[in-house]
Amino acid sequence: MWRLVAAMACGAVPAWLSQAELGLYAGEARAAAEVALRCGAAMRSTLAVAHAATLKDGEGGGIDPVTQTDRDNEALVALELSARFPGYALVGEEAASAAGHIPSIDPATPTWVVDPIDGTQNFVHSLPLSCVSIGLAVNAKPVLGVVYDPYREELFVGVAELAADSGAPGATGFRAAYLNGVPIRADASVTTLDKAIVGTDAGYERSPQGIARLAGAHAALLSQNVFALRILGSTVLSVAYLACGRANGFYSGLAKRDCPKPWDWCAAAALGEASGVAFRRFDADTGFDFQAPSGLCCACSNELADTLEATLREVTGGKPMP
Amino acid sequence: MWRLVAAMACGAVPAWLSQAELGLYAGEARAAAEVALRCGAAMRSTLAVAHAATLKDGEGGGIDPVTQTDRDNEALVALELSARFPGYALVGEEAASAAGHIPSIDPATPTWVVDPIDGTQNFVHSLPLSCVSIGLAVNAKPVLGVVYDPYREELFVGVAELAADSGAPGATGFRAAYLNGVPIRADASVTTLDKAIVGTDAGYERSPQGIARLAGAHAALLSQNVFALRILGSTVLSVAYLACGRANGFYSGLAKRDCPKPWDWCAAAALGEASGVAFRRFDADTGFDFQAPSGLCCACSNELADTLEATLREVTGGKPMP
Repeated sequence: MWRLVAAMACGAVPAWLSQAELGLYAGEARAAAEVALRCGAAMRSTLAVAHAATLKDGEGGGIDPVTQTDRDNEALVALELSARFPGYALVGEEAASAAGHIPSIDPATPTWVVDPIDGTQNFVHSLPLSCVSIGLAVNAKPVLGVVYDPYREELFVGVAELAADSGAPGATGFRAAYLNGVPIRADASVTTLDKAIVGTDAGYERSPQGIARLAGAHAALLSQNVFALRILGSTVLSVAYLACGRANGFYSGLAKRDCPKPWDWCAAAALGEASGVAFRRFDADTGFDFQAPSGLCCACSNELADTLEATLREVTGGKPMP
Repeated sequence: MWRLVAAMACGAVPAWLSQAELGLYAGEARAAAEVALRCGAAMRSTLAVAHAATLKDGEGGGIDPVTQTDRDNEALVALELSARFPGYALVGEEAASAAGHIPSIDPATPTWVVDPIDGTQNFVHSLPLSCVSIGLAVNAKPVLGVVYDPYREELFVGVAELAADSGAPGATGFRAAYLNGVPIRADASVTTLDKAIVGTDAGYERSPQGIARLAGAHAALLSQNVFALRILGSTVLSVAYLACGRANGFYSGLAKRDCPKPWDWCAAAALGEASGVAFRRFDADTGFDFQAPSGLCCACSNELADTLEATLREVTGGKPMP
């Protein structure tokens, strides 16, 4: 059903990636893109067949699926990237899930932060809205995001170097973001909710208090005449669409089980930073920290991010996550 | 950005359509597919450019966009199909909107029911989740649905002939549904909400009572541990995904301004009927009527449709749409 592009299917880096201006992390971007394309080929070839999805146990009530393709892809990413960048660490969803906790990131070590399949619920139902997400954190900050949607054959690459005075060797603050070789930018012209497509996700949150917050946020946005509300089922793809002007806002983490994990955010955060997306945390004024277990929102303009944040803070009443 | 398939871009009917078993309406299916492919080519070529979207006035508060591509596509469909089927009538969203009312369908006349771009809000934001929707009603019942997603190059065709004793000349009750030539079927194995991806849409409903119902339905489904809630922004594509097993349920029309119109449903209803989707109305026990201004839900199995209907009726308390 999906026409494979031969060059992509075998993991070759597309020509534009060798030519694009990628700054300090060009080597990392090309390596991550190559392995993302290989993971994507595996996702394409298994989408249409029945998935032997096993369900993770625990508080999600059996609705958080993990598949063999998830695990295979994460193993492939770990193998390839550790071979090429032996000094780097790697944090992945499946490994963390198996370990039972989120490993902390050592700021002194560049760290790959990987979600082999973002949008696994869609993936196990053959709904073609999922992606490979590979981020790189330096000084514990997202600096590179590689996101690949194998069903549309769309490869997003964003570089957001740290500032020159950050202490990261060679960093200049350089920024660039591309979709299949075309430079992309968030649509800063959208500053109000009535012009905005706003995405969210319910994640695995099913507690009564959490549900009240999620549905309360839907109601609050509709009451403010939001242009459109969307739930696509992939956080990373939702932010990638923001980065290229297809959507205008996104939020998640109003409650505990819809709260982003590092692997949901590292690549998306770098891609967002690289393309002018504004990020806000709900629970602190200390700026965006992709590792913190906090709800957050982001938008294509500061004005819209402020409005979205204010609307959502009103829903939570400033109280911590239920 | 989008690789065009030459044969599709110029509107040629793909080879599988000439070979597929399509029953009584094979000629209509091929003609509708050809014009849908041409409309889709126009959607592809205009997606990435800025859209001169004008906003329809009226009760939607300026959030219901219509574009030149909408109008051009509807004019193209009307021109081509009336030339080939001169005795047939045609009802389209843009024409009805311009006329200020929904034309009623004369059961004695086969009638094309067309939405040139379903998912216009997505389309004007360059979010590639929209489709061309061409249905055919005979005896005022949907018998043919042609749905084309130009961004994935996915062509859905469903035929659901009326029963032999219906009075429709030649009809045998024959059913068939295809996606790009591959026979498709709704996934009847999913019978409970905790295994189901359920889609919906908020439409243009922004009244306080309407919002309370929409958010109340989200809360009710999450409380029943629905596997996943999705809002893709295209009703027809959401039902097409149900027809091919990528999703399991869909509902809309809990309130007035998210209520399906005939052009939102005719093609989707025929495609759904053809692939085993079960339909339910909220406000009556008289079965599905794609023309009635009623909320409705549909699902991949009768069991799931029953549960979805019961859950949503509880939200409305059986009261009419606000």
